[in-house]
Amino acid sequence: MASVKSIVPEFEAANQKYAASFTKGSLPLPPGRKVIVLVCMDARLDPAKLLGLEEGDAHVIRNAGGRAADALRSVVISQQLLGTREIVVIHHTDCGMLTFTDSELKSKVRKDLNEDADHIAFLSFKDLKQSVLDDISLLKKNPLVLDIPITGYVYDVKTGKINKVEA
Amino acid sequence: MASVKSIVPEFEAANQKYAASFTKGSLPLPPGRKVIVLVCMDARLDPAKLLGLEEGDAHVIRNAGGRAADALRSVVISQQLLGTREIVVIHHTDCGMLTFTDSELKSKVRKDLNEDADHIAFLSFKDLKQSVLDDISLLKKNPLVLDIPITGYVYDVKTGKINKVEA
Repeated sequence: MASVKSIVPEFEAANQKYAASFTKGSLPLPPGRKVIVLVCMDARLDPAKLLGLEEGDAHVIRNAGGRAADALRSVVISQQLLGTREIVVIHHTDCGMLTFTDSELKSKVRKDLNEDADHIAFLSFKDLKQSVLDDISLLKKNPLVLDIPITGYVYDVKTGKINKVEA
Repeated sequence: MASVKSIVPEFEAANQKYAASFTKGSLPLPPGRKVIVLVCMDARLDPAKLLGLEEGDAHVIRNAGGRAADALRSVVISQQLLGTREIVVIHHTDCGMLTFTDSELKSKVRKDLNEDADHIAFLSFKDLKQSVLDDISLLKKNPLVLDIPITGYVYDVKTGKINKVEA
């Protein structure tokens, strides 16, 4: 393990540059644009760049697939304590979540790690548009989530465009 | 609800500009720098900017507090299927998670929404440095997480600097 080069020195050097010209030190805690953006963790997506977000604008929740079921804790905190009143859900083309089934990943974990991952719902999906609609529906039906506007998009990793998903 | 102005038209306009000069359409799915960055959803943090990340570099997992317990599904997918071999955990000063207790939020939900949130662990914390150490420890001890380097930082929202947390 020790022979692998860590990314940490590069991150620290990049952060020194960022901090040297930092001018956002007095932003308030609650998001200025009162919105949650729920996006896949995929490396190719930069939510701030692709939506024009500045520091202070929005809560950004990211997980594998941008799945709502795995974001509820954060959504409740955001809405109840920090005043967000809109949600934008963004999944994307060529998503890793389209490439496996939960049972395949559980088998891999059992084989490679000799561990049981049966207690985790990995939330893989087969239909990208449906996954967005399902996540909007899950949020809209959850009694802990406020009745606020929720919009869904598929981001195209080849073009950089978001395309709205409608039922 | 209808009278509130949605952010969506602004996001779509910003995305049109982003897509118009988009040049990253052929990046591979696995993160190029083989790292997961686990960061709080806080609006003031832009992980890409503050760490010098480009599109394609890293999986970025974000939730309220940047808590590891709420990131395990995504970490397993990232490591088992997409080859990441390092984790960087970033919590931050003036975090919303320092401002409440789980029981206070559960009481608020019961009072304001007339709903029961007792099934959710909100993962609030009282000690920022300890929350980073706890999350590193949780990841290191979890048998589903690979034995790889994990580094923790506290980001200072007043200065833009990350400060390493050591036990």
